[in-house]
Amino acid sequence: MLAAPEDVAPAFRDAWMARDGDAIAALFVQDADFVNVVGIWWQDRAAIGRAHGYALQSFFADTRLVLGRVKTRRIGGDAAVVHARMILTGQRAPDGTAAGRRVTILSFVMERRGDGWLCVSAQNTDIVPGAETQVAGAEGLAATDYRG
Amino acid sequence: MLAAPEDVAPAFRDAWMARDGDAIAALFVQDADFVNVVGIWWQDRAAIGRAHGYALQSFFADTRLVLGRVKTRRIGGDAAVVHARMILTGQRAPDGTAAGRRVTILSFVMERRGDGWLCVSAQNTDIVPGAETQVAGAEGLAATDYRG
Repeated sequence: MLAAPEDVAPAFRDAWMARDGDAIAALFVQDADFVNVVGIWWQDRAAIGRAHGYALQSFFADTRLVLGRVKTRRIGGDAAVVHARMILTGQRAPDGTAAGRRVTILSFVMERRGDGWLCVSAQNTDIVPGAETQVAGAEGLAATDYRG
Repeated sequence: MLAAPEDVAPAFRDAWMARDGDAIAALFVQDADFVNVVGIWWQDRAAIGRAHGYALQSFFADTRLVLGRVKTRRIGGDAAVVHARMILTGQRAPDGTAAGRRVTILSFVMERRGDGWLCVSAQNTDIVPGAETQVAGAEGLAATDYRG
């Protein structure tokens, strides 16, 4: 349980750096939603914990996650949205080589539960510099700039 | 102003199909956040309206947007999260050819304002079948499955 909604961002970072899927799961309510960067939509805390635990033991095992800007918006007394920029380095590519740096925007929807706050919904999106949208082609989706 | 939070999904679809950026903007509060599929983060209603209006007059001019599953979660009396699957066809690629079909998850965070509801935050993510996460390589980001 978190003391304030914006605490979710450093708590997520800390759980990530500890490679602790259970600590990530503990930030969420039991029936939480989580949409990841490729549209995988988990709909319960256990699945969110398992998926992150697996990734943190494999392709994210050597990553460093750093928080950028965190923006918090309260909605009445019992809800909030927290947008957090996240900078991820140290990922491994499928062939074992070092992959590049990623910057994402991870947004959390927070609900007051008793004395604290938990996340009911999260969604993560990679920032693709210079792109406007995605285009579906023969090779799959490609982030694209139409302006030239 | 919307009568119920879940009305945002069909209202967004209708505004899209009318190619009406102003009607999209009208679903949002003045200082709303919107994170699009490539991580562009608009932070006011006017920017959300302009960006959608431009896209709907150009590469999305001939698109058809169809709603899939819509899931609504109330958070207390004054907030809600709405997840909507969206199926988009008819997009043009930068070279003018027909692009493929996309399926996205567009989530809306809704706030009660007086007699109705407005969106304070939205985020959209493409579903990439078979992918687990993104990898940053020499060619940019690529949706990747490490398991296969």
